[in-house]
Amino acid sequence: MIFIGEKINGMFSSVRKAIDERDSKFILKLAESQLEAGAKYLDVNVGASDTQEEDMKWIVTELHQLPEVQLAIDTPNPSVMETGLKLCKNRPILNSTSAETEKSTNMLPLAAKYGAQLIALTIGDSGIPSGAEERVALAAAIIAAANDYGIKTEDVYIDPVLLPIRAAQGNPLEVLQAIPFIKELDIPAPKTVVGLSNISQRCKSRSLINRAFLAIAIYVGLDAAIADVLDVELTQLTAATKIALNQDIYCDSFLHGINKLNK
Amino acid sequence: MIFIGEKINGMFSSVRKAIDERDSKFILKLAESQLEAGAKYLDVNVGASDTQEEDMKWIVTELHQLPEVQLAIDTPNPSVMETGLKLCKNRPILNSTSAETEKSTNMLPLAAKYGAQLIALTIGDSGIPSGAEERVALAAAIIAAANDYGIKTEDVYIDPVLLPIRAAQGNPLEVLQAIPFIKELDIPAPKTVVGLSNISQRCKSRSLINRAFLAIAIYVGLDAAIADVLDVELTQLTAATKIALNQDIYCDSFLHGINKLNK
Repeated sequence: MIFIGEKINGMFSSVRKAIDERDSKFILKLAESQLEAGAKYLDVNVGASDTQEEDMKWIVTELHQLPEVQLAIDTPNPSVMETGLKLCKNRPILNSTSAETEKSTNMLPLAAKYGAQLIALTIGDSGIPSGAEERVALAAAIIAAANDYGIKTEDVYIDPVLLPIRAAQGNPLEVLQAIPFIKELDIPAPKTVVGLSNISQRCKSRSLINRAFLAIAIYVGLDAAIADVLDVELTQLTAATKIALNQDIYCDSFLHGINKLNK
Repeated sequence: MIFIGEKINGMFSSVRKAIDERDSKFILKLAESQLEAGAKYLDVNVGASDTQEEDMKWIVTELHQLPEVQLAIDTPNPSVMETGLKLCKNRPILNSTSAETEKSTNMLPLAAKYGAQLIALTIGDSGIPSGAEERVALAAAIIAAANDYGIKTEDVYIDPVLLPIRAAQGNPLEVLQAIPFIKELDIPAPKTVVGLSNISQRCKSRSLINRAFLAIAIYVGLDAAIADVLDVELTQLTAATKIALNQDIYCDSFLHGINKLNK
């Protein structure tokens, strides 16, 4: 299970401000703290401002002051996406495409051109599906389309669209049910990812709900989570989950060096 | 998911002392605190002293100062078991029998005689099985034997024997794999239970490992856990797990009144 740090996102007002003010120090600190806390990739979302093209250029350039940094470029705008991907020195993730015709047509060529891995939401032209089965069907369509562009299945992270329990409390169970079937779609298997914090939007005790879901998701085969890695309780429960499931060998110091989670 | 409070156990030195000194106040306080924290049943284990027969008689009598108390009488000694069961005013659980011939012959008649529910370990005459399949086979044998004594399948809690990860790190995964198959053995299904604290014996950060395992076990269908209900982080994560799995309706106060977990 790998973590993709969610914090560099223009939706957070402090990040928005740092982008507007070109506060490189703030952004780098946020990047480093997430990497230290266990993030393998950093999600980068500059938001939808008029300056998003320039914002993306600036932030991706700045983040490369950390030479090993691996980014997930997160924008629905194909032009901003290309700006971000082009500047990545280490293999990036394109976040995101989907099974929607327009998304797929715009984003898959970019992933192919820049050799990017891919996060792909199981959303089709008729919207977000209900139930596990439709999610699996959309995942199959995404993989076929990606393969057509020469993108390998194992470079595709299928995101079965985790919704807030306040809006759709039955959704997380459907996501959990879909994951093992998605993993069966090809050999080697596609990867799976969720936007973990979605589940607890506008809830009390958000971290508890995030943690409970993630432990179970790891059991059913989840490969990655876009998550708040600065939530120590989350990363600690993740480490304990890997111990309980025999994915990491137990040692008394299993909570130290949690960045070893990334494998 | 129901909790069976594990604390009234002569292995704990404070409990041993309270039993020896007939310290009713200590025992009742421990009972009440577990019930308040969310235990539906209280496990009662007086240990293996020379006075166990008298100890069981005393403690079960004292615990009935709480008129609604429901006990799981926990002893390998058939005579001590009968002493405990006989004094229970509310329907007890016999903890435990197994698929071992001697256990089965001694304990099943007692469960039948006193109308007790039953915790039954998937241990056979050749010991603790390795792997999920043997656990399921032993569960089937236990259910058949219990039915022969007129004990209903739904009154049997199958315990697939959770071992310490320090001794057998692959075991918890086998237990998780066995649970759904055990639930398929009959209609209505047998219940399932684990001795949760076993998993983390002699580990650091025990509660984290217990919590991670329990969240996943609830997902695969676990009905009950003999556990440390005084561990607030455990009961809170359990409440969050039930929310995430749509087993409880989300409300902002889902962490209040955690004794509502018992259903």
